[in-house]
Amino acid sequence: MNLEQKLQEGNKRAVARLITLVENKDPAAFELLKKLHNKTGNAYVIGITGPPGAGKSTLTDKLVKAYLNEGKKVAVIAIDPTSPFTGGAILGDRVRMNDLSTHENVFIRSMGARGSLGGISEGTSAAIKVLDIYGADYIFVETVGVGQSEIDIVKNCDTTVMVMVPGLGDDIQAIKAGIMEIGDVFAINKADREGAKKTAREIDAMLDYNSNEWRPPLTMTVAVNNEGIGDLVDSIKEHRDYMQESGLFETRRINNTKNEIVELIKHRVLEHIFDNAYNEEKINNLSKEVVKRITDPYTVCEDIMHNIKRK
Amino acid sequence: MNLEQKLQEGNKRAVARLITLVENKDPAAFELLKKLHNKTGNAYVIGITGPPGAGKSTLTDKLVKAYLNEGKKVAVIAIDPTSPFTGGAILGDRVRMNDLSTHENVFIRSMGARGSLGGISEGTSAAIKVLDIYGADYIFVETVGVGQSEIDIVKNCDTTVMVMVPGLGDDIQAIKAGIMEIGDVFAINKADREGAKKTAREIDAMLDYNSNEWRPPLTMTVAVNNEGIGDLVDSIKEHRDYMQESGLFETRRINNTKNEIVELIKHRVLEHIFDNAYNEEKINNLSKEVVKRITDPYTVCEDIMHNIKRK
Repeated sequence: MNLEQKLQEGNKRAVARLITLVENKDPAAFELLKKLHNKTGNAYVIGITGPPGAGKSTLTDKLVKAYLNEGKKVAVIAIDPTSPFTGGAILGDRVRMNDLSTHENVFIRSMGARGSLGGISEGTSAAIKVLDIYGADYIFVETVGVGQSEIDIVKNCDTTVMVMVPGLGDDIQAIKAGIMEIGDVFAINKADREGAKKTAREIDAMLDYNSNEWRPPLTMTVAVNNEGIGDLVDSIKEHRDYMQESGLFETRRINNTKNEIVELIKHRVLEHIFDNAYNEEKINNLSKEVVKRITDPYTVCEDIMHNIKRK
Repeated sequence: MNLEQKLQEGNKRAVARLITLVENKDPAAFELLKKLHNKTGNAYVIGITGPPGAGKSTLTDKLVKAYLNEGKKVAVIAIDPTSPFTGGAILGDRVRMNDLSTHENVFIRSMGARGSLGGISEGTSAAIKVLDIYGADYIFVETVGVGQSEIDIVKNCDTTVMVMVPGLGDDIQAIKAGIMEIGDVFAINKADREGAKKTAREIDAMLDYNSNEWRPPLTMTVAVNNEGIGDLVDSIKEHRDYMQESGLFETRRINNTKNEIVELIKHRVLEHIFDNAYNEEKINNLSKEVVKRITDPYTVCEDIMHNIKRK
């Protein structure tokens, strides 16, 4: 039986194998995803993001259990763009999910950054497709931090849960623009900690500046004690219903696809340039000349661009 | 008197103006940076990075004061890749630095992400050059988070200080690979908090796996009380001396330049493709077809690549 059949029958090993092939940029994997693209679009994709230390893994863990109790099939992709590692349970905090990963209706996968030209967002999009074909009802995409890479990653999602935590201090102001852009639903986790109410008030005040029709709901959670999880599940459902009834669901999927296409083109073009046109040694030598002030980076760039266009 | 002269005379308004021109991708600004490239290379560039809530701004504030007391000229670039805002004191936490920004030997600037094709790393490189020409002895580059964008940003620096904080929990494991890659000097700030010793032990254990000759020193700081700042200044100096004596200083500057050139080419090529070859509407329509499952993202990407090559 081949990978295509196994995948559609919900074989977890086939899922793991195909995601690895995608990460290795195996052309056969993309041919399979092309062929099976009409089998995608059924899974609901939920992004879980927020600063390190917010307890995102534990919260994801509890949400997964809540959906399992509803009889759903659930998948988790845990992404660390700063990690070169990939696959299995390499991320330390994923160990906590071990009791879940043996559940027949759960598939869990860690992904790191492969290759220096980026591509983590591309890999995430492809892994979501694999898990969609596999038959997951819900796919969680969990990030480690909250920066530009993480924003790019959650641009693959239908609903994004922004997990905040008390004690961020003034940095909450600094990450404001980023979190306002991507959070559909907010959770303040570790809400039993000192300062939780203050954090809630600050985030609530930020959300008042939100100009969209949808005003992100704010839930207090203590994931480790399973507190507030039901409310969070309700908020996610509320957002999903709103998106589907308003027609914004399809608009977002079109926008997400647009982002995906742009990312794909970016990476393929860059691979083409740096694999074929310019070898490492050449750029190394030019860099030495820049440091010696024989030339400057802008002139080097213009010369290279000129050569690319001539070819 | 023109911008070029004013800049070299250390006029702060000229510095601010030129950084704005660089952010706006004004060709005249890059022509000026080309011309004055032989005036660069004198400033020492220090990256300050770490997770949100670690107190990086306060720590930077104290380090700036320490160098001012040595009679040095200091500049700070505070970068938030998730923020679309730029310039002035827009980031809330920069307000704390107001007493510094009026000091004649200090220049402070916030930078956000401009444009959807990235370029924050490119903007940082250019701003560093401007401040170098202006005559800064030390340039601090402070990031908001700790993700791939932040790693790209500190690849412009000579010494990178990784600021950690107690209470990160299991996420410390997840960010491990990222912080090991870029930290030359470690500070555990808010070291008067519970769990500081545990965090120190965990990071110390991580540093044991470091295979480089240089073993990053670890300093405990309470920036808000000015505790441990002297030790941190000493650690930075120690790293600087090591790099210069071992010849790694020049190697790193060559590598940083290489990164800069690669980033420049990436952005210029992408601008070329998305500005000229493909307009937004075309990609929008193709995205709709993907969502309707008429085609798939990989086929769309291949078709576009084919068209680009034919032109």
